[in-house]
Amino acid sequence: MRLICCCSVLLLLFLVPRVCHTDNILVFPTEGSHWINMDILLQALHSRGHNVTILRSSKSWYIKDDKSYYNTITVPVERSLDQNFITKLISETLQFQRGSLPITNFLYLTFGMLGIFVEAHEAVCEFVTAILDDKSLMRNLKDSKFDLLITDPCWGGGVILAKYLNLPLVYNARWLIAGEGHLAIAPSPLSYIPITGSGHTDKMSFLERVKNVMLHVTNQMHNYLVVTQTYQKLCDKYLGPDNDFNLLALNADIWLMRVDFVFEFPRPTMPNVVYMGGFQCKPAKPLPQHLEEFVQSSGEHGVILMSLGTFVGEIPADMTNEIAAAFAKLPQKVIWRHKGDRPAALGNNTLLVDWMPQNDLLGHPKVKLFVAHGGTNGVQEAIYHGVPVVGLPLFFDQYDNLLRLTERGAAKMLTIETVDKDNNFLKAVEEVLTEPSYRINMQRLSRLHRDQPMKPLDTALFWIEFVMRHKGAAHLRSESYKLPWYSYHSVDVVLFLLTAALLILLIFVWILRSCLRLCFKRKIKSE
Amino acid sequence: MRLICCCSVLLLLFLVPRVCHTDNILVFPTEGSHWINMDILLQALHSRGHNVTILRSSKSWYIKDDKSYYNTITVPVERSLDQNFITKLISETLQFQRGSLPITNFLYLTFGMLGIFVEAHEAVCEFVTAILDDKSLMRNLKDSKFDLLITDPCWGGGVILAKYLNLPLVYNARWLIAGEGHLAIAPSPLSYIPITGSGHTDKMSFLERVKNVMLHVTNQMHNYLVVTQTYQKLCDKYLGPDNDFNLLALNADIWLMRVDFVFEFPRPTMPNVVYMGGFQCKPAKPLPQHLEEFVQSSGEHGVILMSLGTFVGEIPADMTNEIAAAFAKLPQKVIWRHKGDRPAALGNNTLLVDWMPQNDLLGHPKVKLFVAHGGTNGVQEAIYHGVPVVGLPLFFDQYDNLLRLTERGAAKMLTIETVDKDNNFLKAVEEVLTEPSYRINMQRLSRLHRDQPMKPLDTALFWIEFVMRHKGAAHLRSESYKLPWYSYHSVDVVLFLLTAALLILLIFVWILRSCLRLCFKRKIKSE
Repeated sequence: MRLICCCSVLLLLFLVPRVCHTDNILVFPTEGSHWINMDILLQALHSRGHNVTILRSSKSWYIKDDKSYYNTITVPVERSLDQNFITKLISETLQFQRGSLPITNFLYLTFGMLGIFVEAHEAVCEFVTAILDDKSLMRNLKDSKFDLLITDPCWGGGVILAKYLNLPLVYNARWLIAGEGHLAIAPSPLSYIPITGSGHTDKMSFLERVKNVMLHVTNQMHNYLVVTQTYQKLCDKYLGPDNDFNLLALNADIWLMRVDFVFEFPRPTMPNVVYMGGFQCKPAKPLPQHLEEFVQSSGEHGVILMSLGTFVGEIPADMTNEIAAAFAKLPQKVIWRHKGDRPAALGNNTLLVDWMPQNDLLGHPKVKLFVAHGGTNGVQEAIYHGVPVVGLPLFFDQYDNLLRLTERGAAKMLTIETVDKDNNFLKAVEEVLTEPSYRINMQRLSRLHRDQPMKPLDTALFWIEFVMRHKGAAHLRSESYKLPWYSYHSVDVVLFLLTAALLILLIFVWILRSCLRLCFKRKIKSE
Repeated sequence: MRLICCCSVLLLLFLVPRVCHTDNILVFPTEGSHWINMDILLQALHSRGHNVTILRSSKSWYIKDDKSYYNTITVPVERSLDQNFITKLISETLQFQRGSLPITNFLYLTFGMLGIFVEAHEAVCEFVTAILDDKSLMRNLKDSKFDLLITDPCWGGGVILAKYLNLPLVYNARWLIAGEGHLAIAPSPLSYIPITGSGHTDKMSFLERVKNVMLHVTNQMHNYLVVTQTYQKLCDKYLGPDNDFNLLALNADIWLMRVDFVFEFPRPTMPNVVYMGGFQCKPAKPLPQHLEEFVQSSGEHGVILMSLGTFVGEIPADMTNEIAAAFAKLPQKVIWRHKGDRPAALGNNTLLVDWMPQNDLLGHPKVKLFVAHGGTNGVQEAIYHGVPVVGLPLFFDQYDNLLRLTERGAAKMLTIETVDKDNNFLKAVEEVLTEPSYRINMQRLSRLHRDQPMKPLDTALFWIEFVMRHKGAAHLRSESYKLPWYSYHSVDVVLFLLTAALLILLIFVWILRSCLRLCFKRKIKSE
């Protein structure tokens, strides 16, 4: 018995995760649903004993001044990136989107709304300026001897701060200022890598590839227009000459990407890109009593969940009514996260809620279907718990996220333009409920996603701590992006070789001609 | 106490590696030093409870008919790929190499020795033909219901067998028929990815990039010439039409690559490429008594190891003598794996051995320096144990392997042409022994290499078992290689867009010209 106990102690010693010494981590986060992800990562870092310090603006909306597990430094700013701003952005997008073609929609998002995007990034720049101009704050930041800066690179402030403070940099990433992160960091042949917004998969027809290339070019232009008007100005002012913002953004030590290849199409990657898709997912906890009772009351028919995400509580009343009427016709019970007026056609089987424990509900065996807008978090949770989806994408990447599920036969997608026509919504819900392939496919994805050497969150934590242990991860980071484009793509070499080949050919032809002429002359002479 | 014991049992249950059900694994290995690697992987699979069956030819030299931990199927063949053949190949290479330029050396290896390479692969094809023509053997193989085929793709037989038997395929890889595996599977911009044999790093001058592109083209030609004369014929005969060998070779589920990014320069990779560099390395075991006594007798000066690998016991006598004389001048003790005549100038401090427990010696604290030829196994063991290297590359990838250490300041390299001139060897050994930076840099590499979420061997085993659990890993494998090259690189799209732009421009110019002409005419008329 004593032997077993000794063993158990030894085992415990062996099991306890690598003892981590306390590090100081500085965080420059992004607002909105991006903060939900970052928050999970930071809580995990805090629980591993690290000191986490967050820079937030005084007008911050999502990031609370909550000191329970991290320190916050609140920097006073004038301009606001608050809920009103985001709601304005989203409602404008949504209003435009209904009835427009995907291509015009993309172009509108890229250029039509350029002003709003520039405005948003200008607000971020004002926040960064307020930090950099506050001499006492900067002295404090320098004296704190941070080991690392973590940021979400869809806002560029963290990149500039990390360079200014000379700190190793880790991204919690999926997007840069414009476009998906991979497109900047890894070779991305546009022949099979669909640009977000294109609505294509990794198998494209010729015309789809034409569209894909054009969208990539517009994305690059969007990036150029936003960066030159915002972050590049900060670089020039605070980092001195020859600091190109786009190159600095590629200089991060580790890119923790919020996808994996169960969700994303297979594509080239780089050694310093670490996949942590689904890191926020966890086994379901028991439900609050009233919800558990409601769920159990569904009997053998089970429950449908519906949520259109963080930002969109209110959708147009005609759509809401169509959806409510469809739900009323089903034998299932429905839990609907809904913020607007109570739809007139609401059935007795439908429970409207302001908020729901989405992860715990998705993990409940009675839940049969998830009606979702296709935000990354919801899609990853649906994959983790193996619940098939009826998708109702609203904007941004949501269509493309849902497309990755429909391609694998795990979801059915509706468009916002047709959802309230011809009983489309009811038909889609019934199809996914009755056709077993949706559930079978989603559960296959769930098995693949869960079968990893390490949990995604543990992988993320390992690499964050790796960067702190080794003061960076330069050996994983290619510096090829510093090459000029014509060198990177060997255009200069190919031109040189073609010229050389042409010269050799010309010399050869000249020699041949000279020889022939000589022979010919001699022949004439001899004749 | 009971509680603790209960916990210990629970912990044990949690700790025991994922219970693996017994699988049948078929192996098509490669001879020579490649087998050393494969053997380690197969022993580990055997110890995890899998049935391993190896296909070997009756003329096999390295792969013994040892049934202790795997089943062997010996297939009678006429042609031999035995020690004599390999020795002939190597001595011819070595003889040519001494005194030749790297570029001529590369061209000679690529085209001058094409006949020998074709001969080697023809022998492999004869072996595969013998398997495929043996109806009873093929029936047995089909009835055995294998879950997986593992092969080293530098011989193409495994690829054809896996396709024929319709089995998931895992590579234990670094090389394909010609060239490094990454060049085939992942985008490889030649501007910063040095071709093996170029002798360049990931930072190249313009002329080096020109050479690199030319070497890549010759490699592709070498591959084309070998494959069309050997494996493609087998594909046409046994797999039916439209089975391109080069495409089949890209169809493996997982590529276990025998490198990591502590050794290799950072470069693009793919989701189904798994890095297991150094998987063969393990902590040192105690030395046999006579070796331990010899090592201890070195006192504070420590010990130098020297080994030029599996194949090269004998090096030219003049070189051997120069090396022996240099060793005799040192206060260190030397253990030299040497197979030829005893060099005349051998000092008392040097012990010649036929074989040595290299890993255990490298892990001994008294060992200060490793004189090595730069084979992958030796280089990885030196990194693992943090022992600096004096490199003496002979052929193939050895120069490039050692270059990866010299670039990181962890090795000093000599060439076989200059090793016996001007005390070069003695100077190099003394420099690495006395200049602390070599040891410091190598130990930094060692720390980086060992700091991984999982041990490389465990990573390899996880992914092999993953492929068996899920009957493949299609979700990690891009099928972009099936696109024609002009589509893959969007050449067709770019030409289309340029043509469209030109047309629009022409129409615009035409309209402008017509308008101007019209205006002009009217003006003349009115005048």
